[in-house]
Amino acid sequence: MFTPKEPADAATGGSPSAFPMPGHRVTLGHDLPLRLDSGVELRDFPVAYQCYGALDETKSNAIIVCHALTGDQYVAETHPVTGKAGWWETMVGPGKPLDTDRYCIICANILGGCMGSAGPSEINPATGEPWGLEFPVITVADMVRAQAMLLDHLGIEQVFAVIGGSLGGMQVLEWASLYPDRVFAAILIATAAQQSAQNIAFHEVGRQAIIADPEWSGGAYWKENKRPHRGLAVARMAAHITYLSESALHQKFGRRLQDRDGITYGFDADFQVESYLRHQGSTFVERFDANAYLYITRAMDYFDLANRHDGVLAGAFRDTPVRFCVISFTSDWLYPTAESRRIVHALNAVAANVSFAEIVADDGHDSFLLDSPELDRVLRGFLAGAAYHCEIARAAAQ
Amino acid sequence: MFTPKEPADAATGGSPSAFPMPGHRVTLGHDLPLRLDSGVELRDFPVAYQCYGALDETKSNAIIVCHALTGDQYVAETHPVTGKAGWWETMVGPGKPLDTDRYCIICANILGGCMGSAGPSEINPATGEPWGLEFPVITVADMVRAQAMLLDHLGIEQVFAVIGGSLGGMQVLEWASLYPDRVFAAILIATAAQQSAQNIAFHEVGRQAIIADPEWSGGAYWKENKRPHRGLAVARMAAHITYLSESALHQKFGRRLQDRDGITYGFDADFQVESYLRHQGSTFVERFDANAYLYITRAMDYFDLANRHDGVLAGAFRDTPVRFCVISFTSDWLYPTAESRRIVHALNAVAANVSFAEIVADDGHDSFLLDSPELDRVLRGFLAGAAYHCEIARAAAQ
Repeated sequence: MFTPKEPADAATGGSPSAFPMPGHRVTLGHDLPLRLDSGVELRDFPVAYQCYGALDETKSNAIIVCHALTGDQYVAETHPVTGKAGWWETMVGPGKPLDTDRYCIICANILGGCMGSAGPSEINPATGEPWGLEFPVITVADMVRAQAMLLDHLGIEQVFAVIGGSLGGMQVLEWASLYPDRVFAAILIATAAQQSAQNIAFHEVGRQAIIADPEWSGGAYWKENKRPHRGLAVARMAAHITYLSESALHQKFGRRLQDRDGITYGFDADFQVESYLRHQGSTFVERFDANAYLYITRAMDYFDLANRHDGVLAGAFRDTPVRFCVISFTSDWLYPTAESRRIVHALNAVAANVSFAEIVADDGHDSFLLDSPELDRVLRGFLAGAAYHCEIARAAAQ
Repeated sequence: MFTPKEPADAATGGSPSAFPMPGHRVTLGHDLPLRLDSGVELRDFPVAYQCYGALDETKSNAIIVCHALTGDQYVAETHPVTGKAGWWETMVGPGKPLDTDRYCIICANILGGCMGSAGPSEINPATGEPWGLEFPVITVADMVRAQAMLLDHLGIEQVFAVIGGSLGGMQVLEWASLYPDRVFAAILIATAAQQSAQNIAFHEVGRQAIIADPEWSGGAYWKENKRPHRGLAVARMAAHITYLSESALHQKFGRRLQDRDGITYGFDADFQVESYLRHQGSTFVERFDANAYLYITRAMDYFDLANRHDGVLAGAFRDTPVRFCVISFTSDWLYPTAESRRIVHALNAVAANVSFAEIVADDGHDSFLLDSPELDRVLRGFLAGAAYHCEIARAAAQ
């Protein structure tokens, strides 16, 4: 049975940061740096990750979970900062679709994140201070390259599956595109092969809200012991609306008032939906770094998989051996079904093996994070089929 | 021919404000105050307005245009602040659907606005300083009551039509509900009879962006000669996205870069859509008051016409003599067609006279402000029919 090194391995890294979080952390890129899309080389950079379930002796039962914009590696355990349940406990655990009795589920904090992997809030080895805006702007491909280096470190040649929603789905697309031989199956949920103009626009609003906050201090807020909490909260509030649907907001809150009998003719949170949004903003800033928000949204905006293939998305998948599962939700207006169809069409154009499911759900983009019997069913079915074919393929290869 | 009093009448008002704008301004509520929904009474308050076309001798050819959130009374002339064309020059003018050769088009700056009518940036007669947050929170009904007082002042008993889009449409609904005998025809475009939870949520993001700006100074920014321009710009940027459609943004900007050949791996406006949004934010703050933005969005959030009628919208229109025209746009996701249908169903339930048109348009909520041959056709047709019936009705009444 595989046992990852304990957090102590952080101490062996090049980073002087005292990583306070539970879990694993390795320093990668010592012998061979990570060459980013920007051209910058990252050396001796930390990657924090969690594992659920045991790796088998041949190290062939791993599933990589790619997290979304504000997610992290605490997929299926109490979050060390918020004390809340892991963000995908509905999906990951014994007997669950991502069955930890059978698979070793690995999730790494993305590059640019703020839960232990290299990012603007981590220590720049060259200065001993947080990187801030000195951290190189990264791409979704860079995030995936760092995860591939983690697999190298763990001695895993090929994973059984890569799965993720939203930005996680973008990473899955990059996994299949950059490392088709290291991924048997790819499951992408509620995502797109390129960020739309509207989504860039919403991200830009969030970034401008952060940058407009004087406490942001040109990105070097830690130097003055400040935090741009107000700007980050506004960014979160705006984004949060896009994660839901009009119908979900109507059903959840409608025009119901918050602990009052009538409107107050003022600017307090008269409506429940206002109170809810404010809460989303104020809790978010306790667990997330403002600069990381800038970097990750930027990586998403830059994402355009077809771009590397002369604008032809199918070019990213030519001769792919990967088996794909593409899932969208009817009420998701951030990454609507049309975006998934575009991916499916590109996969069809190269005769790739692809399943596609549009799930009827009312909760908008966030549907992939919520308990959904139909999502469960689709995933269980696809994973069972993929496991069957994986065994055959691997037996044939021996 | 009717000639409104010249701007000089501002000087006769109770307000010490030196109204610097071209156009008409009167002081209302001297003998009888305006009693607001909040219970507060407004006395000697200014209302600024513009007229296009001449009032006939019987003062029976007026059309009231109700402007939207960030609009104002400069409907069909160069705007005195921005130098740009009036916001509805496509619609108002000689030979245009709102034909100034035939009708006298009147548009008043709404209560709570910042173009000369009473609002937080106007002078509070009691203190000689801007009202700021001392200004009472107003409702859409209050805006319409102030306009009715303007009609009294102008000696107009009944207008031929009231027309408006978005918040303007909400005012039209209030006109028909509060003063059914003073309005012959009511045209409501891209609007709703109550603000949805999602729309309240977007407004709350905008308000929080303003309030989060330290320059807002608790709403009393003028005292420190400050302006919360950064917060207001962010509010505008977020709102602006909701005025368009994903498809319009895709066609207008897509992922095209702004004056550069490649992405810059930074936080500049690499994409045209970012540059466009920033421009929307930075120009808006030159012409709009942050507190007015708070007050007007609040009035919209409070809008719920059914509420006064035990939750039954039809109750607002029982026995109405008004002829209605309801118009929506296919790509409008802020006030989608479903909201218009709800109004039409309520009108049908009381056997009101109502025309309904859903116009195929790609530009989202802003479609009502743009050149649209189909909108023109619908309006010309409805206005011609209404004029015919108006003549008959008025002849019968004599």
